[in-house]
Amino acid sequence: MDEIAEIVHRLQSEYIPGLTLDQCRESVLAVLDKREAQHALLTGIALDVLAEKDLLPDPLAAIVKSDAPLYGVDEILALAITNVYGSVGLTSFGYLDKCKCGVIGKLNDHSTGRVNTFLDDLVAGVAAAAAARLAHQHGRSFVVDRDARPAEG
Amino acid sequence: MDEIAEIVHRLQSEYIPGLTLDQCRESVLAVLDKREAQHALLTGIALDVLAEKDLLPDPLAAIVKSDAPLYGVDEILALAITNVYGSVGLTSFGYLDKCKCGVIGKLNDHSTGRVNTFLDDLVAGVAAAAAARLAHQHGRSFVVDRDARPAEG
Amino acid sequence: MDEIAEIVHRLQSEYIPGLTLDQCRESVLAVLDKREAQHALLTGIALDVLAEKDLLPDPLAAIVKSDAPLYGVDEILALAITNVYGSVGLTSFGYLDKCKCGVIGKLNDHSTGRVNTFLDDLVAGVAAAAAARLAHQHGRSFVVDRDARPAEG
Amino acid sequence: MDEIAEIVHRLQSEYIPGLTLDQCRESVLAVLDKREAQHALLTGIALDVLAEKDLLPDPLAAIVKSDAPLYGVDEILALAITNVYGSVGLTSFGYLDKCKCGVIGKLNDHSTGRVNTFLDDLVAGVAAAAAARLAHQHGRSFVVDRDARPAEG
Repeated sequence: MDEIAEIVHRLQSEYIPGLTLDQCRESVLAVLDKREAQHALLTGIALDVLAEKDLLPDPLAAIVKSDAPLYGVDEILALAITNVYGSVGLTSFGYLDKCKCGVIGKLNDHSTGRVNTFLDDLVAGVAAAAAARLAHQHGRSFVVDRDARPAEG
Repeated sequence: MDEIAEIVHRLQSEYIPGLTLDQCRESVLAVLDKREAQHALLTGIALDVLAEKDLLPDPLAAIVKSDAPLYGVDEILALAITNVYGSVGLTSFGYLDKCKCGVIGKLNDHSTGRVNTFLDDLVAGVAAAAAARLAHQHGRSFVVDRDARPAEG
Repeated sequence: MDEIAEIVHRLQSEYIPGLTLDQCRESVLAVLDKREAQHALLTGIALDVLAEKDLLPDPLAAIVKSDAPLYGVDEILALAITNVYGSVGLTSFGYLDKCKCGVIGKLNDHSTGRVNTFLDDLVAGVAAAAAARLAHQHGRSFVVDRDARPAEG
Repeated sequence: MDEIAEIVHRLQSEYIPGLTLDQCRESVLAVLDKREAQHALLTGIALDVLAEKDLLPDPLAAIVKSDAPLYGVDEILALAITNVYGSVGLTSFGYLDKCKCGVIGKLNDHSTGRVNTFLDDLVAGVAAAAAARLAHQHGRSFVVDRDARPAEG
């Protein structure tokens, strides 16, 4: 959890001066409180665990165990989390998925024998959503501060 | 606005006993308060208006004016609104877009000379999002009532 | 398979005069040949089967078995199939998911003891994709016939 | 066009040994031949041009001209292009959108007075789609070579 908050901090601290790790942690918790996020996490983690226990049918077992690059269901589930805070999280998600920063890189390490095909993408999805949530809050309060109006529309 | 609330009421009243039009209206307003929805609406309505005033370049002008069935940008913008309340709104959006219920059908009437290529889809997107929001609220409070726990996760 | 082709025929025959069931069947096969569709189908069907055999962990097991209305992962996987032929399939997918036409209604029948939480949506996704594929082909050849130009761009 | 092919080459050459710039160029052309891509490009470029000519209504004009970070419609249109080759392109898109590699960085340069709010994202979307297309082709022929079977399903 703290490791996800650190990724969120790295993503957003250049845009939001004075952003604290506590604010990032609170944003991650808010994402995890969303039903859409919970469903995607429950489903993806179950698929990882079932692959590890050899309970998935073939050829799905082989695809999930090898984290086959053309298998896109892990990205799709992760994106369902990111999308809850709108399209501005897409960029962060893709970036995290490519750079494998921080804990995401550890999860993506295939030498451990553990299957984390879904988990690394889901963590990236949660971090991108939490960053997007902060961006929206910051954007909104900035507008309010400057213009004393409730919103931009 | 009231016409959108009526569509939401029709979509959700069979699932939520005692749902009032006021609750639907409040849910539509909550959707319209989302920045993602405001951006999609501003963009889509501007494209309709510019098409009507012959300010779009060709061939885009002809495509938007004729509401060409293979032009999917109107659906994409509308879906960005629906997605803010998760994937459960997708079904309602597709259904509304096909049945052209209520005000959506009036907006889709091509005989008036007005260009509403984007507006009919955007209204369907707002209605589907407002219905999904009510479904989430209802689902959540239902779980709370039964289990006396704050959430399902 | 023939039942999916019939749904496609019902969706598109009003737009494409002279559309045959064979053309619909061929379009369904083309969708099923796409890797994106295969991955979504393998994953969703495995989740249904594992739920039926009581091999999913809780609370996911209960969610999938009851086809909980706020669980959106089934729609997300189905939409990944539909999206391969662009956003024009979204409307058909939502419509099929709501009307539960033909074989989709049979699959959605919860009285049989079988778990088809994913399968009914996946079938709707395949049918919507096959219909979108025909719409694209028809649109394209229509433009070619009329204008003797290769495409609209 | 050659600049987009170079980005595709940079994205995929580590995964596909012997990939040539000509193959990348051919893949970009295949993406541009897709109706979904053409519609997204026509719409996004029109919005950039209209913003530059001060023909957009407020507040949309200000939002598009400033490439406001919370405006997500540009990403949404670009993603519609990427999605045509499935979810594997999402990661590349996000990465390109963040790193602003090559021509994308030049387009995103706000000091020129030109409005490229949509164009930089659209170019990233085309490049990500062309890279995903190559990945699919490579994956598929790899499977065929090894197994002498038409597909992995």
